[in-house]
Amino acid sequence: MFSTISTQTVTQPELISAIDTIWVALCAAIIFFMEGGFALLEAGFVRSKNAMSIIAKVIIDVVFGGLAFYAVGFGIAYGNSNGWFAFDVGITTEDLGLGLTVSNKLFWFIQLGFAIASISIVSGAVAERMKMWSYAIFVVVFCTIMYPLVANWVWNPNGWLAVRGFNDFAGSAAVHAMGGFAALAAAIVLGPRIGKYQANGEANAIPGHNLPLAAVGAFILWFGWFAFNPGSTLGAVGNWELIGTVATNTFLASAAGGMATMFYTYFRYGQIDITMTINGVLAGLVAITAGCNVVDANAAIIIGLIAGVLVDVAVLYIDKLKIDDPVGAIAVHGVNGLFGALAVGLFATEGGLFFGGGAAMLGTQALGVFVIGAFSFTVTFILMKILQKTIGIRISKQEESAGIDAVSFGVEAYSTFE
Amino acid sequence: MFSTISTQTVTQPELISAIDTIWVALCAAIIFFMEGGFALLEAGFVRSKNAMSIIAKVIIDVVFGGLAFYAVGFGIAYGNSNGWFAFDVGITTEDLGLGLTVSNKLFWFIQLGFAIASISIVSGAVAERMKMWSYAIFVVVFCTIMYPLVANWVWNPNGWLAVRGFNDFAGSAAVHAMGGFAALAAAIVLGPRIGKYQANGEANAIPGHNLPLAAVGAFILWFGWFAFNPGSTLGAVGNWELIGTVATNTFLASAAGGMATMFYTYFRYGQIDITMTINGVLAGLVAITAGCNVVDANAAIIIGLIAGVLVDVAVLYIDKLKIDDPVGAIAVHGVNGLFGALAVGLFATEGGLFFGGGAAMLGTQALGVFVIGAFSFTVTFILMKILQKTIGIRISKQEESAGIDAVSFGVEAYSTFE
Amino acid sequence: MFSTISTQTVTQPELISAIDTIWVALCAAIIFFMEGGFALLEAGFVRSKNAMSIIAKVIIDVVFGGLAFYAVGFGIAYGNSNGWFAFDVGITTEDLGLGLTVSNKLFWFIQLGFAIASISIVSGAVAERMKMWSYAIFVVVFCTIMYPLVANWVWNPNGWLAVRGFNDFAGSAAVHAMGGFAALAAAIVLGPRIGKYQANGEANAIPGHNLPLAAVGAFILWFGWFAFNPGSTLGAVGNWELIGTVATNTFLASAAGGMATMFYTYFRYGQIDITMTINGVLAGLVAITAGCNVVDANAAIIIGLIAGVLVDVAVLYIDKLKIDDPVGAIAVHGVNGLFGALAVGLFATEGGLFFGGGAAMLGTQALGVFVIGAFSFTVTFILMKILQKTIGIRISKQEESAGIDAVSFGVEAYSTFE
Repeated sequence: MFSTISTQTVTQPELISAIDTIWVALCAAIIFFMEGGFALLEAGFVRSKNAMSIIAKVIIDVVFGGLAFYAVGFGIAYGNSNGWFAFDVGITTEDLGLGLTVSNKLFWFIQLGFAIASISIVSGAVAERMKMWSYAIFVVVFCTIMYPLVANWVWNPNGWLAVRGFNDFAGSAAVHAMGGFAALAAAIVLGPRIGKYQANGEANAIPGHNLPLAAVGAFILWFGWFAFNPGSTLGAVGNWELIGTVATNTFLASAAGGMATMFYTYFRYGQIDITMTINGVLAGLVAITAGCNVVDANAAIIIGLIAGVLVDVAVLYIDKLKIDDPVGAIAVHGVNGLFGALAVGLFATEGGLFFGGGAAMLGTQALGVFVIGAFSFTVTFILMKILQKTIGIRISKQEESAGIDAVSFGVEAYSTFE
Repeated sequence: MFSTISTQTVTQPELISAIDTIWVALCAAIIFFMEGGFALLEAGFVRSKNAMSIIAKVIIDVVFGGLAFYAVGFGIAYGNSNGWFAFDVGITTEDLGLGLTVSNKLFWFIQLGFAIASISIVSGAVAERMKMWSYAIFVVVFCTIMYPLVANWVWNPNGWLAVRGFNDFAGSAAVHAMGGFAALAAAIVLGPRIGKYQANGEANAIPGHNLPLAAVGAFILWFGWFAFNPGSTLGAVGNWELIGTVATNTFLASAAGGMATMFYTYFRYGQIDITMTINGVLAGLVAITAGCNVVDANAAIIIGLIAGVLVDVAVLYIDKLKIDDPVGAIAVHGVNGLFGALAVGLFATEGGLFFGGGAAMLGTQALGVFVIGAFSFTVTFILMKILQKTIGIRISKQEESAGIDAVSFGVEAYSTFE
Repeated sequence: MFSTISTQTVTQPELISAIDTIWVALCAAIIFFMEGGFALLEAGFVRSKNAMSIIAKVIIDVVFGGLAFYAVGFGIAYGNSNGWFAFDVGITTEDLGLGLTVSNKLFWFIQLGFAIASISIVSGAVAERMKMWSYAIFVVVFCTIMYPLVANWVWNPNGWLAVRGFNDFAGSAAVHAMGGFAALAAAIVLGPRIGKYQANGEANAIPGHNLPLAAVGAFILWFGWFAFNPGSTLGAVGNWELIGTVATNTFLASAAGGMATMFYTYFRYGQIDITMTINGVLAGLVAITAGCNVVDANAAIIIGLIAGVLVDVAVLYIDKLKIDDPVGAIAVHGVNGLFGALAVGLFATEGGLFFGGGAAMLGTQALGVFVIGAFSFTVTFILMKILQKTIGIRISKQEESAGIDAVSFGVEAYSTFE
């Protein structure tokens, strides 16, 4: 431990870099903590016999995904881009052209959080039935190429969507729709869990085994979002007003999302659905993630209210299509990531359709998010089919019945209590 | 994502705003995370049949309370005050007269954390027996009017208590006694849970169903307090020494509170009571919250030691009065919030009775915290009575027996493990 | 609440102190949160009948250890040192000669996190069988004298290891090996849990009762390490590049540690061991803690890979020696703390053996960590023997069978679910 600076004169760029480094380093740490949120939320929402396997999958997201994003992915995302991709290996010390005031390594560390958040969305949708090594391969491909390409398009200054003015501040499209549409394709190819759908097509509820544990995860995610969105400023100097706006919008949308789900489920079913309320909060957070920097507070509330209803409708609709998504990842991240990107085109105070900006911005937002969704869906679908034909993607029926934890990991989440 | 500043010259006010924004934004996020702490602590301390209902109540605190504090409450608290109340709608961009270096929106976001912390205290005391919609109405009134009025008196520069020099740095009175005395009134009107008291008046222990879960909540709250108290500086520039003092005092009081409870319960009952020890730590934290900026380290330890005993005595005494408080919220937040506000008058190094300052400061502290406690108790009592006579506040006996989770939410916290 | 600075001119030292204070205060709070990580990880890894007792032990670490480190320990560590020890009482306002830009109190608060992390390592190794009051006495001695002496040697500018250029950035040796070798001695003196080893010497697995709870703890620790290591800069001004390097190295080693354990356990046992994977991640974190400031990214990965294998081998070997360490603390913190300190001498880009620096640095690192490990082991061994002969260290067989929670605390972690 040491501290080298005391009273000698420090240049202003040094001061600015110190200030922005604190902001980015601490936001990045908190964003990283969201992986705990994903792991525990998903573990609580599945059956106890698969609880540790889903935590293992999130650890694979972090470990395999993180190393892949370090070795190759980051260079594809933020290297010298031709608009579609780049290919610089590792983390250079050269200026990335992003106007960064923090070191490239620190920039990598915060970007890591976004990459592994995106893949962690998929882990929930394939829960309770996917083979671990197939999943690990998918994680590596996703974090090596798939996510980095989209990050390149959206956030690399030369990216074709960035050039067109696509506004996806913290990643409703690039992170959430990206993960959500991969989740959709993966869930389709995998097929539903045994016993999820009856012969007549009706869905059986398979309740989560430990909802307080899911709540631990939900609160970690909620907390983390206040770093995920404001931290996307990548620096505090010059952004102090923006940070306040982003934080407030993020809260308002989440609260409105939770409230909308409460009222929707209460009036529709006569009871508040508390697990859906958690998803409603998350839906509001996903939906505001693209536009938290360009919408006003009232718009944030409206976006949240819509997201909170959308997620309920989407969960039911996806279930009707017999697409089995144990934790609702497609509805929360895919549908609301899509909606959030479009909402920018509707609600942006400058350029939004409802604010007299015409349809141009909405068109760009739609183009961007549909391309991202289609790209993510298609590549995932093909990749899952290849994995299916080769090493297999689905665990055996015996394993699915006995539980992945016992069969693949030789472990029980909860030992006989004594 | 973007970062706009690199090497051009930045004015000093811009730098200061950036620095203070980082401090306030990250403290606010961590304070927000304390809601997870409340939810999990309370869920662990109740029976499993009501675990999700209490988490739902805390989500209501955040969602309903947060939107109410946004729409109306904040304007009452921090608008242009006549000393007793203000009424500005929403968050303006005008100078609030607080000498803020952060945006009004960011100031709102950190104040939000205090408002919903205060109401979350109540959720614990009404656990396992209060109707959800009545509770939601109470939350809205509390965060719209009740808490904001008190915040106005204490923290608005024109507030009548602020003008008198009432020192309540981070809210032993305005947040904790406020919530604790509302909890007291609510618990009285609601009455005890079925089976809590025997015919002869003796109390039956109703143990929490998942104490490790309560510990998760406790550690989140303990962590959060290191943002709650130091973050109340509302800025780091000019406050760097104060922040160190506040953090150290906060720790010392919490440790002393935990130690006092350990010794007290050991010598009184022959066994350390571990759930009470958690409450002892929290009691120390509550008690130091008012004076962490004006007492020295030894005083912080003494305050913590007293708090750690006070909470044990208070829990028993409240039980003797047949006031059923499932999580000890009244003893932790009400009694120790009261004590913490008074302790400033005793221990402040400048003006405290024990430091030769005479009784004037103690008088002001007593006036403030008694008015706040009485106000909170009275308004809550009346409001609960009105709710009782109209839509009802108490769940049915059948629901209380079967559990709120199953009856009102159609959910089980823990599904049959398979 | 108040904020005193708005637009008047602030001197540069004031600005620097404000910036560094934010960094240290928030890192310190997050490091403090790691105590929750230790408590929950350990609680999840033991049997339910002892879950609350281990949480109580971690609370004792914080409460007793924290107050001891305040009253005496800090002065021994950071007072005016003769190279081996110092003795200043309490926290002075004098310059400690460390070039600090934050207040001494804030420096104390962050150092507190390191002290109580070190002792919390021990709590895991003595789980399920040590008497609580003996443990409390050990905690007090450890935080009063033992840890402070080592911190003095390593981090006090006059410390004999500091003077020799011993590089232990955030404490692989001073915190982790220190705690790990104390854990080793304590586990040896205590002896194994009843039923752990069969007559033929084979070990029985005693699985943790709640692995998702252990995962909550693991994610908190992983999160906390991004404050533990980068926060050891003790200031951001002048360190912005270093902070990025440290954060990235910390992540890479943890990911490599997790990956190595996954592959190792998969190829050795045919199944990934998920609890060992958690330990692999932690081993990578421990091992990079000494050198995160002086190694490059590739070295961080290699260090992590080695750590992830080392922990698996060490756990088996320690078990073969019939040293019962319920949570693997010795292998994670002791063995990998030792390795991490040595790794600096091998991998430091300036001075490391593999980078052409010769053996001098490796010699210093070896000297330092072996002295620390031997010191910690020896003093703990003697102290445990003294405690054994006097007040006793081992709970009764009846208590061990019935559980510490029920017998010593009169509590059950989980009440009959209703």
